[in-house]
Amino acid sequence: MVQAAAVNIPSLSAGNFATVYNLFSLAIACLLFTSLYLVVSQRQVAKQYRNAVIVSATVCAIAAYHYFRIFNNFEDSYPPGQTIDSAHQLSNIEFNEGYRYVDWFLTVPLLLLETVAVLALGRAASKKLLFKLIPASALMIALGYPGEITNEVVPRLVWGTLSTIPFLYLLYVLFVELSKSLERQPEEVKHTIKMLRIALVGLWGVYPIAYLFPILGGDFFGGEGGFVLKQAGYSIADILAKAAYGLAIYKVARVKSRLEDP
Amino acid sequence: MVQAAAVNIPSLSAGNFATVYNLFSLAIACLLFTSLYLVVSQRQVAKQYRNAVIVSATVCAIAAYHYFRIFNNFEDSYPPGQTIDSAHQLSNIEFNEGYRYVDWFLTVPLLLLETVAVLALGRAASKKLLFKLIPASALMIALGYPGEITNEVVPRLVWGTLSTIPFLYLLYVLFVELSKSLERQPEEVKHTIKMLRIALVGLWGVYPIAYLFPILGGDFFGGEGGFVLKQAGYSIADILAKAAYGLAIYKVARVKSRLEDP
Amino acid sequence: MVQAAAVNIPSLSAGNFATVYNLFSLAIACLLFTSLYLVVSQRQVAKQYRNAVIVSATVCAIAAYHYFRIFNNFEDSYPPGQTIDSAHQLSNIEFNEGYRYVDWFLTVPLLLLETVAVLALGRAASKKLLFKLIPASALMIALGYPGEITNEVVPRLVWGTLSTIPFLYLLYVLFVELSKSLERQPEEVKHTIKMLRIALVGLWGVYPIAYLFPILGGDFFGGEGGFVLKQAGYSIADILAKAAYGLAIYKVARVKSRLEDP
Amino acid sequence: MVQAAAVNIPSLSAGNFATVYNLFSLAIACLLFTSLYLVVSQRQVAKQYRNAVIVSATVCAIAAYHYFRIFNNFEDSYPPGQTIDSAHQLSNIEFNEGYRYVDWFLTVPLLLLETVAVLALGRAASKKLLFKLIPASALMIALGYPGEITNEVVPRLVWGTLSTIPFLYLLYVLFVELSKSLERQPEEVKHTIKMLRIALVGLWGVYPIAYLFPILGGDFFGGEGGFVLKQAGYSIADILAKAAYGLAIYKVARVKSRLEDP
Amino acid sequence: MVQAAAVNIPSLSAGNFATVYNLFSLAIACLLFTSLYLVVSQRQVAKQYRNAVIVSATVCAIAAYHYFRIFNNFEDSYPPGQTIDSAHQLSNIEFNEGYRYVDWFLTVPLLLLETVAVLALGRAASKKLLFKLIPASALMIALGYPGEITNEVVPRLVWGTLSTIPFLYLLYVLFVELSKSLERQPEEVKHTIKMLRIALVGLWGVYPIAYLFPILGGDFFGGEGGFVLKQAGYSIADILAKAAYGLAIYKVARVKSRLEDP
Ligand SMILES: CC1=C(/C=C/C(C)=C/C=C/C(C)=C/C=O)C(C)(C)CCC1
Ligand SMILES: CC1=C(/C=C/C(C)=C/C=C/C(C)=C/C=O)C(C)(C)CCC1
Ligand SMILES: CC1=C(/C=C/C(C)=C/C=C/C(C)=C/C=O)C(C)(C)CCC1
Ligand SMILES: CC1=C(/C=C/C(C)=C/C=C/C(C)=C/C=O)C(C)(C)CCC1
Ligand SMILES: CC1=C(/C=C/C(C)=C/C=C/C(C)=C/C=O)C(C)(C)CCC1
Ligand code: NA
Ligand code: NA
Ligand code: NA
Ligand code: NA
Ligand code: NA
Ligand code: NA
Ligand code: NA
Ligand code: NA
Ligand code: NA
Ligand code: NA
Repeated sequence: MVQAAAVNIPSLSAGNFATVYNLFSLAIACLLFTSLYLVVSQRQVAKQYRNAVIVSATVCAIAAYHYFRIFNNFEDSYPPGQTIDSAHQLSNIEFNEGYRYVDWFLTVPLLLLETVAVLALGRAASKKLLFKLIPASALMIALGYPGEITNEVVPRLVWGTLSTIPFLYLLYVLFVELSKSLERQPEEVKHTIKMLRIALVGLWGVYPIAYLFPILGGDFFGGEGGFVLKQAGYSIADILAKAAYGLAIYKVARVKSRLEDP
Repeated sequence: MVQAAAVNIPSLSAGNFATVYNLFSLAIACLLFTSLYLVVSQRQVAKQYRNAVIVSATVCAIAAYHYFRIFNNFEDSYPPGQTIDSAHQLSNIEFNEGYRYVDWFLTVPLLLLETVAVLALGRAASKKLLFKLIPASALMIALGYPGEITNEVVPRLVWGTLSTIPFLYLLYVLFVELSKSLERQPEEVKHTIKMLRIALVGLWGVYPIAYLFPILGGDFFGGEGGFVLKQAGYSIADILAKAAYGLAIYKVARVKSRLEDP
Repeated sequence: MVQAAAVNIPSLSAGNFATVYNLFSLAIACLLFTSLYLVVSQRQVAKQYRNAVIVSATVCAIAAYHYFRIFNNFEDSYPPGQTIDSAHQLSNIEFNEGYRYVDWFLTVPLLLLETVAVLALGRAASKKLLFKLIPASALMIALGYPGEITNEVVPRLVWGTLSTIPFLYLLYVLFVELSKSLERQPEEVKHTIKMLRIALVGLWGVYPIAYLFPILGGDFFGGEGGFVLKQAGYSIADILAKAAYGLAIYKVARVKSRLEDP
Repeated sequence: MVQAAAVNIPSLSAGNFATVYNLFSLAIACLLFTSLYLVVSQRQVAKQYRNAVIVSATVCAIAAYHYFRIFNNFEDSYPPGQTIDSAHQLSNIEFNEGYRYVDWFLTVPLLLLETVAVLALGRAASKKLLFKLIPASALMIALGYPGEITNEVVPRLVWGTLSTIPFLYLLYVLFVELSKSLERQPEEVKHTIKMLRIALVGLWGVYPIAYLFPILGGDFFGGEGGFVLKQAGYSIADILAKAAYGLAIYKVARVKSRLEDP
Repeated sequence: MVQAAAVNIPSLSAGNFATVYNLFSLAIACLLFTSLYLVVSQRQVAKQYRNAVIVSATVCAIAAYHYFRIFNNFEDSYPPGQTIDSAHQLSNIEFNEGYRYVDWFLTVPLLLLETVAVLALGRAASKKLLFKLIPASALMIALGYPGEITNEVVPRLVWGTLSTIPFLYLLYVLFVELSKSLERQPEEVKHTIKMLRIALVGLWGVYPIAYLFPILGGDFFGGEGGFVLKQAGYSIADILAKAAYGLAIYKVARVKSRLEDP
């Protein structure tokens, strides 16, 4: 069968190991301290915006927890070689991509909930929207997982394609349906909706691209290169889509608090 | 003697190990962060509902602690094999189902207390009800434990049956007795009572079913399959009966707070 | 010399190990989460009762810390045998009963302070009472320790008897002296005083009894049985005298808060 | 050269090890939970006294952190022997007295700052006083360290004497200079100043005495005895000078809060 | 090629190891407890200054996390030798300077943001200023990293020089541009701006100097000496530029709070 870069590639050069290692540590730091910052800052926003901030903090905390596990797992899967410059050989402990999917399974619906809450549509409209978005996001994650943990090109492509269907549906709902509701919104909210919508597409689009790296094949993408790029893609996208996004929501909540209760 | 799937089955395939491992990690994440979310959100509800929210947070924290122990214990009982694809052989450290029963012993009475508190019966009626429910729940857990840690079918069935007696009594009290009191309640509370009652039966019913999996025998249920299904059943039920249930109670408390003090 | 069950008995059956292990884990869970529950609930009581609740939380936290140490120590002292069913042989690391005495040395005076505070005697009367109770309790713990760490019957009995003198003095002060002051108290406080006084005697009386188990001798008490019973006695008494007692004090504080400031 | 008891004495009897071990654990418990108690109790005092309480909590937290390190370091430096009764031989990991000096370097200035704050002198007078006390205390710790980590009598005495010069200057400033300012203070503050001043001298005086134990020589002080006494002296003095002292400052702050805003 | 002191020097004397070890532990203590102190003290300042204090606390927490990693990494890279006095030989685990650069990458922009916030320029002026400072600081860190992890003199100098360009630009903006805005500020703010500006230059200037130590060559700087000096320089500068700086900002915020709302 056509082989993609294996999930558990047999060896990582010292430099590649260090790059991924430092990125995971960066992700832990960003996510953990954004979470703590948001919890401590909770009182800075008006009562009606606190739940948005607390959910953002929770999303970052969940992700920090999973990056902590991923970090330790990475150290166990690729222990140091004979010398500092030796490659790190894969041990008997697999590098468990399941942590990412467990993380996304919990955080993606919360991010959608968060976004819809910030849009401040009516209660009924919000419910209807989430009723479409949350099952679609769960399906997207669930269909992506079997493709992620296979070492072969064809099933990776098939599951990835299946996962892309609910993903495109998500984008459709966020673009087409929301654009309709956009007309009924006040001026400031319009801008926020557009900005967050674009951020979602721009950042969330990184995930399917990173997913494809190991498939590209060749000496680079089919080996360590594909692995490193995928980890870097997922990690940087996670930092931006959770921590930076959470800080943006906090800023919106703070500005609105100031406007409404000066 | 007729053998059920052993509590400590001798070996788990790499795939089965990963499934259980990821479920335990999911349970930790769900329970820990629901607990933190509820603690941080405490101030969002009126004073008279805070105890309900704090108890929900405590239930989730107790369970998170036990899943943390279960997770570490599982890693010690089934260490990695020679290669990533090897089965995980049972080590000399038992997989201790005692953690679950210690957990249930503490959390089931708290969940009942929580539910009764949310019903907002009078003080005397609440006391009378808990006086029936809490001893019954303690008995249910205590009688289930000896059946859980045996590898043989007959005692598993006997203790399970004995444990089912207080379990059915619990259901009886929650259905028959409460239905009486239901008539005297305002309209919104009626709906809540019915919903929570159904959730209790639907979710709590998963536990005795999961308990039975290892007994079913045959190649699948009598071996790894029965073990994996039981762990999955218990874990998913725990997530729903504690974390999702706690979030539902928080939502009720928040809505009531808004209605009573707009 | 006449031998009692050794502090560090040479071996524990798999079942006995599991019993003690699960009891220690239960104690950690009860004490840790009671402490967290009380800290989070602090605001539910009026300002004048908060110190009582915070001290109760501190007592449970100190004990949770020590049970955490005892739990890890127990695992190190009795490592797993060849198979899951093998007995756990004593390693080269002693099972350190010192943790319990360090714990009691800190928590028993705090519990007495707590109890006197709840009685709401005048400032001068409280001081006079604590001036008797606290040194007596310190003496009781200090005299008990040498008897606890000996493997011989006679010194165990001698130190235990010496320790019982301040213990009986404590009971005397709590019964005779307080009964006098009882007459001058309002009706509700009378009931509370009587209830707490009885709880103190009933629960604290478990400690000297558990202390005696290893002395009883014979096949059961002179071996593993005496060890297991002693650990079970101490652990269950600690859970009740700290966690349950702390929750009772919290309930009293909450009721009084409601009565005084409705 | 004349030898003092070595910093890293080659072996500790089981009993001596247990004594030091239990004292370190006692210190962790006292310092950690005093810190947590003070943080949680912060709101019990008026706004103007909160910084005093928070600094006290910080001092205890810093010390708890260092005792945690010292405790782990002690376990690594003196691992268990063949049997429970064997002496603990020094391993290849030194017992690092540096932790104590890092701790004192941070906590002694904070304790002085705390004490001066509680005296409630004017802003200018406080500044002038701290300008003398803090550099002197830093010098005292810095000069003591080289003497602490040497195994020889003469340098230990020389550095100890040099360190005593700023120490005596500290006492002089606290006694002579403050006694002057004492006359200008209200009646209650006078008593507090005298009490704290005496506590400082009485407790701080333990440190140079404990420092001398290993020098005394002979079979007892020149060996394990000197080591155990020094550790006991430092640890008990730390518990009293930080935890008990912090609780005293909290009590003062609480009484003053009650007097000023009843 | 001309060699500088290697990043991973092959061996450290016992004394050098202890010096660096104790400095890292000091850094953890300073940064962690400054962070906790600031979080707990948050309420002591007026609402408009809380974000400044929370960001300072976050900077210290991020750095404490990284020093914790650096500390553990240092222990793993230079394990103890045969005896306490033996040199610590480099193991097969590299001493990862990446932690520092990840840390700076996050904390330097936050410190600049913090400083600009404290200057209380208008919203537009602040934005414009940060738009210059933050990218320059990111560039400075990014260009310094490749020079830090090389063992050769020439690339170390080249990257260091490139990194110095944005560094000097930072100083220019902080001195020249801010001096302009200085004229439009009230009297107290002028003093603060000048003081903080000088602190920034004085402390931040330590980093490029410490960076140069391993280049100086010769027996001392080219070996352990250069390594120890570099670690000491970075660590002490980090303590002052984060913890001491954060405390200074807190003091400013507290004074301003008192002035504005007495
Ligand atoms: C379309 C697609 C995918 C999409 C993943 C996405 C969109 C993940 C988003 C994660 C977020 C936003 C996490 C941060 O909280 C997969 C599963 C990689 C599989 C390949 C196809
Ligand atoms: C009837 C029955 C059982 C019931 C267990 C239940 C009902 C557990 C509920 C646990 C909950 C609700 C935990 C979450 O907090 C056992 C003991 C498996 C033994 C077999 C018979
Ligand atoms: C009389 C007696 C004893 C009493 C111990 C007691 C009464 C301990 C109470 C502990 C508590 C209440 C802890 C919970 O916080 C000892 C020392 C066993 C030694 C034998 C004689
Ligand atoms: C005079 C003298 C010393 C004094 C030490 C003191 C006075 C330490 C105080 C520490 C405190 C108060 C810590 C608690 O926070 C040394 C250094 C042992 C060296 C020998 C001479
Ligand atoms: C100019 C220069 C450097 C400057 C580093 C600086 C200025 C770091 C500041 C760090 C701070 C302030 C951290 C505390 O939060 C490097 C990268 C060493 C490389 C050599 C040239
Ligand atoms: Na490496
Ligand atoms: Na792991
Ligand atoms: Na595996
Ligand atoms: Na365990
Ligand atoms: Na231990
Ligand atoms: Na066992
Ligand atoms: Na020993
Ligand atoms: Na250590
Ligand atoms: Na060494
Ligand atoms: Na590490």
